[in-house]
Amino acid sequence: MKLVTSLVTFWLVLNCVSCSFVVEPGPAVKATRGEIWPKPKVQSSTENYFGIDPVTFQFKVTGHTCDILDKAIERYYGIVFSVANDFGSTETNAINSRNLFAKQATLDYSNFFGFLDEVEVHLKEPCEEWPYFEMDESYRISLNKFEYKLQSSTIWGILRALESFSQMVISWSGMLRINSTLIMDRPRFPHRGLLVDTSRHFISLPILLQILDGMAYNKLNVFHWHIVDDQSFPYHSVKFPELSEKGAYHRSMIYSPEDVQTVLEEARLRGIRVMPEFDTPGHTRSWGESHPELLTPCFGKLGPIDPTKESTYAFLSELFQEVTGVFPDRYFHLGGDEVAFDCWQSNSDITEFMDDNQIVDYGILQARFTRRVVDLVDRLNKSSLVWQEVYENADNLPDGTVVQVWTGDQKQLLKQITGDGLPALLSACWYLDHLSWGGDWQKFYNCEPRAFPGTQDQKKLVMGGEACMWGEVVNDRNILQRIFPRVSGVAEKLWSQRNVNDTVEAAARLEEHVCRMNRRGIPAQPPNGPGYCL
Amino acid sequence: MKLVTSLVTFWLVLNCVSCSFVVEPGPAVKATRGEIWPKPKVQSSTENYFGIDPVTFQFKVTGHTCDILDKAIERYYGIVFSVANDFGSTETNAINSRNLFAKQATLDYSNFFGFLDEVEVHLKEPCEEWPYFEMDESYRISLNKFEYKLQSSTIWGILRALESFSQMVISWSGMLRINSTLIMDRPRFPHRGLLVDTSRHFISLPILLQILDGMAYNKLNVFHWHIVDDQSFPYHSVKFPELSEKGAYHRSMIYSPEDVQTVLEEARLRGIRVMPEFDTPGHTRSWGESHPELLTPCFGKLGPIDPTKESTYAFLSELFQEVTGVFPDRYFHLGGDEVAFDCWQSNSDITEFMDDNQIVDYGILQARFTRRVVDLVDRLNKSSLVWQEVYENADNLPDGTVVQVWTGDQKQLLKQITGDGLPALLSACWYLDHLSWGGDWQKFYNCEPRAFPGTQDQKKLVMGGEACMWGEVVNDRNILQRIFPRVSGVAEKLWSQRNVNDTVEAAARLEEHVCRMNRRGIPAQPPNGPGYCL
Repeated sequence: MKLVTSLVTFWLVLNCVSCSFVVEPGPAVKATRGEIWPKPKVQSSTENYFGIDPVTFQFKVTGHTCDILDKAIERYYGIVFSVANDFGSTETNAINSRNLFAKQATLDYSNFFGFLDEVEVHLKEPCEEWPYFEMDESYRISLNKFEYKLQSSTIWGILRALESFSQMVISWSGMLRINSTLIMDRPRFPHRGLLVDTSRHFISLPILLQILDGMAYNKLNVFHWHIVDDQSFPYHSVKFPELSEKGAYHRSMIYSPEDVQTVLEEARLRGIRVMPEFDTPGHTRSWGESHPELLTPCFGKLGPIDPTKESTYAFLSELFQEVTGVFPDRYFHLGGDEVAFDCWQSNSDITEFMDDNQIVDYGILQARFTRRVVDLVDRLNKSSLVWQEVYENADNLPDGTVVQVWTGDQKQLLKQITGDGLPALLSACWYLDHLSWGGDWQKFYNCEPRAFPGTQDQKKLVMGGEACMWGEVVNDRNILQRIFPRVSGVAEKLWSQRNVNDTVEAAARLEEHVCRMNRRGIPAQPPNGPGYCL
Repeated sequence: MKLVTSLVTFWLVLNCVSCSFVVEPGPAVKATRGEIWPKPKVQSSTENYFGIDPVTFQFKVTGHTCDILDKAIERYYGIVFSVANDFGSTETNAINSRNLFAKQATLDYSNFFGFLDEVEVHLKEPCEEWPYFEMDESYRISLNKFEYKLQSSTIWGILRALESFSQMVISWSGMLRINSTLIMDRPRFPHRGLLVDTSRHFISLPILLQILDGMAYNKLNVFHWHIVDDQSFPYHSVKFPELSEKGAYHRSMIYSPEDVQTVLEEARLRGIRVMPEFDTPGHTRSWGESHPELLTPCFGKLGPIDPTKESTYAFLSELFQEVTGVFPDRYFHLGGDEVAFDCWQSNSDITEFMDDNQIVDYGILQARFTRRVVDLVDRLNKSSLVWQEVYENADNLPDGTVVQVWTGDQKQLLKQITGDGLPALLSACWYLDHLSWGGDWQKFYNCEPRAFPGTQDQKKLVMGGEACMWGEVVNDRNILQRIFPRVSGVAEKLWSQRNVNDTVEAAARLEEHVCRMNRRGIPAQPPNGPGYCL
């Protein structure tokens, strides 16, 4: 009585449609042990392994250091040693004793390289303070008889190396161990993001911090904070506190300046950029609760921002000056999607303005609005990102404006956008709110951002992509389960090489990765059908 | 950038496709206050209301009583007064003071009926010990100037009355209050179930108990425990402990006899029957880990139970004798779905047996198997439930065997089954593992179990239905979010009158009901799009 799901499971996992009678007991997919998600560019591991004794093990910093590194090492000590604590209660005590090893007659001594008491963490260049677009995230890990070392030129690479190292440590017959390994790794795309919508439902600070943790476990590096929208305005503006006082769902559902600083700091410590979005001119209904003068009256209601008033731009200039001062990232997302032209059309002031200015259609009106906002953001020394409609409606966009593709024919759009020399971000195939069944990471995994007709130069203009967690039906109670591990499919697609595209191979690693995320406190849901984590 | 979901939301909620510009700030659906889910048969409330002072309020038992009632009253004290505690921290202290009322100049004194310090709980007949099929769940609530009373002939009705009462108590301007109300209520269908699969993923005892809580909040009354299946055998049999020792995922993933007793007791206290399912002859692969002799060898593996061996029936007889002794409910679910006939077909012993016995097809072979198991269960004084395949494959089933419809043309099947005089249960339209989008309770809500061509007598043979939570992609981390509030759509369909079918009206009540479940500790996900609970 579970026809559809089980068929889907078998089909995807076993390619076995006609043989439901050979259902094996146990999990649908056998998890790997100590494999890395997302898969590194180059990795060669051997059967030789080191033991790790929690009492004596340490990371030894031999190059540059800074607060990011200090805190990362502290964090990864916790992660590496909690791996063990969750591997069955009877094993927990044993873990703490090196003597155990001698007692384990079943262990294969021939491959045992001894205990790894010190791993060198070597940062070659001084730390940078904030992560940024195209930061260097490459790193090298060598664990062999002669060298025990994580190294990178940048603190960001060191963070990725620590994550990979922590994923390789496993508990085996009561002992922590790690295989002798050489890794040379770097991401394929520089922009690997997750959009979180905190307007349709308010997401509390502790959950946002868990999301950042989960992003770090998947080497995602951009938290796209779709912070306000029609439904609520939870951002506390210092200049315009009335925006959230009147526009938030409730006084308890506002991000204070301290909350925002906490998100920024915890993201920074994980090498994650925080890119805010203040979507205009549509999706601004909640702004009107305190500033109705910004919006266009139509049909007895209030629609998008009124692009004809000078006062609109003065307000946006002030607000964006504040916001761009708060968020250090170079990129500022201007939104620009789904503008209700029929509202503008019904408003006589706007019609009059268009006549006076010889603006013949509403796309051009939006383009004029966008141009002014982009210029405004430019003057604040920021770069703009926009949703695809802005590109579709404008004659031309300023150089360097990034266009995010979310709907329609994604291949055609990517071809056009990059053909016009503009950088692009892909999201169309990575909408986490589109559900099919529970473990549907494969549909995200099978979307290749550079699979569109174009030159090499065009392909390079695809900066990466973002999974989008729109907030209509997620709140604190289910957002983590909905995001993880489905976003992991996107994360590997954006980090790993293009030839890493075998869902059967990936399924086994993801099975392990989900259990790993679970042990680390992220309630990721089952990825592949029947199974269990210990 | 959230086209599909938002359109679905608007379309379903506002019937507004072309007017996305009039997006209102705030929640998509405004929650009711103090409305009951599922909707009672008869309810008349007025604007007049009583205050409730936690210090002085009490339930006064005036009729029969028993442990079920004592514990229910204790539970509902907690529930009624925790309602208040979650209505904003600044209000919490105030709740505890009757003086507050005098200070609230904004309250409407004209409708104030004073404080309700005592509600009579009147059970007319002695308690029954165990809930059962067609138990009387009717009740009456009268709260007016002359009478403050919950009453029922049965403890089961009293439980439902307490649930309704607790749902009507709301916090308003810092005071708990309840409207003057008359309710006469009883369920439309006697069997209102939720199937939970604990084999594909193990569901821990605390989560099972939360599921029972959630069921009680929705007046569901049958916990269909699909306890074992191909993937794992988590039931600890006293007679055959090897079944779970070898067939469970892990030694920590077994329901001990004490665990089962806890489930039975907590369900009993909530008026919920526990109906176990030991699915045979298919879906038994995990049994083979300890008892391979039960299964049919085919293609180098093990398939369904071998129906040709006498030893099979001897084993099932012993196991089912134990199980039917553990579970007091009259109904025992025999499964019978998705039997791999091709496995039987490939096995020469089975072919020979069929030749010897002049059995011409595998459906008849399954029918013979089922007949023997049904007879066996009959001798154990239990009634059998089976999945539809058993009906489809058999010439005739023993009178009273209940057929559960899960796939295919549900109207045609219900017509045929009831036409043959057999009772039926509907599940086909209530598969909780079939996802469309987050808040898809409407599709469950819009399925009417008696909408098939047939006589009144046939319609009466539909005992009710069950929502099915198959376990492929749910475990402890997401099962509660997946079940609630989607099962609430099924629950109201099965409890309330047939003319309660307005999804717009229901959406507002469900919005409240979800927040209520959340306050009570059930992490039900958002039902209707953007919104919030306090």
